[in-house]
Amino acid sequence: MATLDFFYDLASTYSYIAAIRIGPLAQAAGVTVRWRPFLLGPIFKAQGYDTSPFNIYPAKGRNMVRDCERQCAELGVPFRLPAPFPAMSLLAGRVAHVGLAEGWGEEFSRAVYRAEFGEGLNISEPTVMAAIVGSLGHDAEAALARAQSTEIKHALRASTEEAERLGIFGAPSFVTGGELFWGNDRLEQALSWAKRSAHELSS
Amino acid sequence: MATLDFFYDLASTYSYIAAIRIGPLAQAAGVTVRWRPFLLGPIFKAQGYDTSPFNIYPAKGRNMVRDCERQCAELGVPFRLPAPFPAMSLLAGRVAHVGLAEGWGEEFSRAVYRAEFGEGLNISEPTVMAAIVGSLGHDAEAALARAQSTEIKHALRASTEEAERLGIFGAPSFVTGGELFWGNDRLEQALSWAKRSAHELSS
Repeated sequence: MATLDFFYDLASTYSYIAAIRIGPLAQAAGVTVRWRPFLLGPIFKAQGYDTSPFNIYPAKGRNMVRDCERQCAELGVPFRLPAPFPAMSLLAGRVAHVGLAEGWGEEFSRAVYRAEFGEGLNISEPTVMAAIVGSLGHDAEAALARAQSTEIKHALRASTEEAERLGIFGAPSFVTGGELFWGNDRLEQALSWAKRSAHELSS
Repeated sequence: MATLDFFYDLASTYSYIAAIRIGPLAQAAGVTVRWRPFLLGPIFKAQGYDTSPFNIYPAKGRNMVRDCERQCAELGVPFRLPAPFPAMSLLAGRVAHVGLAEGWGEEFSRAVYRAEFGEGLNISEPTVMAAIVGSLGHDAEAALARAQSTEIKHALRASTEEAERLGIFGAPSFVTGGELFWGNDRLEQALSWAKRSAHELSS
């Protein structure tokens, strides 16, 4: 079976676009996607960044906003940059790991992105997280409590460490068959690679 | 008539790929391309970089090489990183401006990229430049002399200053109808935008 690891940070603009696109494209390609929320912050810090490169380099940041507006307009979804940007995605990342352990992590991740880049909400706020979990029909209080457990804290830290070991330096990133693909623009190529790798292994 | 400004630095890996792709795609789209060689160095310097970000961030640099290998394999063209990388593209940029003034600038630019990223040659060497100009059937000695004229030095500097004014922060970049598109991955979208802008202006 063809599989692809989808590494995303819940504060990342281009991960939002990839999260919208990946479901139907992976289904059409017959590829199983493993959703892997991680934190870009520690990886940026190791590269010497104390915030997003989009803040450090204003021309690059302005173009990112305009580019996301154009991409989202083509996809028919809203886009706005929340304040502050980037949001602290530690809590959202932990709740996403709770959701993945309980079978609602993908839907939760998409809902977080919609709240953040569609409505401009601050995803670092526990009330915002609780409202999203509740809107999906799950027990928000239990989920937020579990998000602070050693097991879940460790799961998010382990994803981030694995991302760094794999050479990941930005988000979204896709890993399949020993290949690393960086950026929403590489989603289609990564899915083709996943199919090809699975075919070569089975033949 | 739909037009697109193609800003490229002759030391830029993704500009190489864009330079290969842009001709047929623009022709199919009915868009006229203005080739605009400029220097990324001063723009990087203004952002605080003293070399390519691909050297400053090794994980990003390793992925760029692998990504270019994969992209070029799909296009059926060779790819290798020349040493040193990035090359000093001042002389090549000036000769490209001579070529554009004399009607052989596009062909020259493609030939420079092939020499650099296909054969690994150092494009900062006058002998390499002379060989390329000569291979295109033009007077290499005259072209290299004209490359040092005030007119040509000014033309390259003016392109670089215009790029900076337009908000360009990397290469390749495409400008059309007041919109800036960054990266080889945006070539198709930029061409569509050029067509649409021309249509709106004429209707």
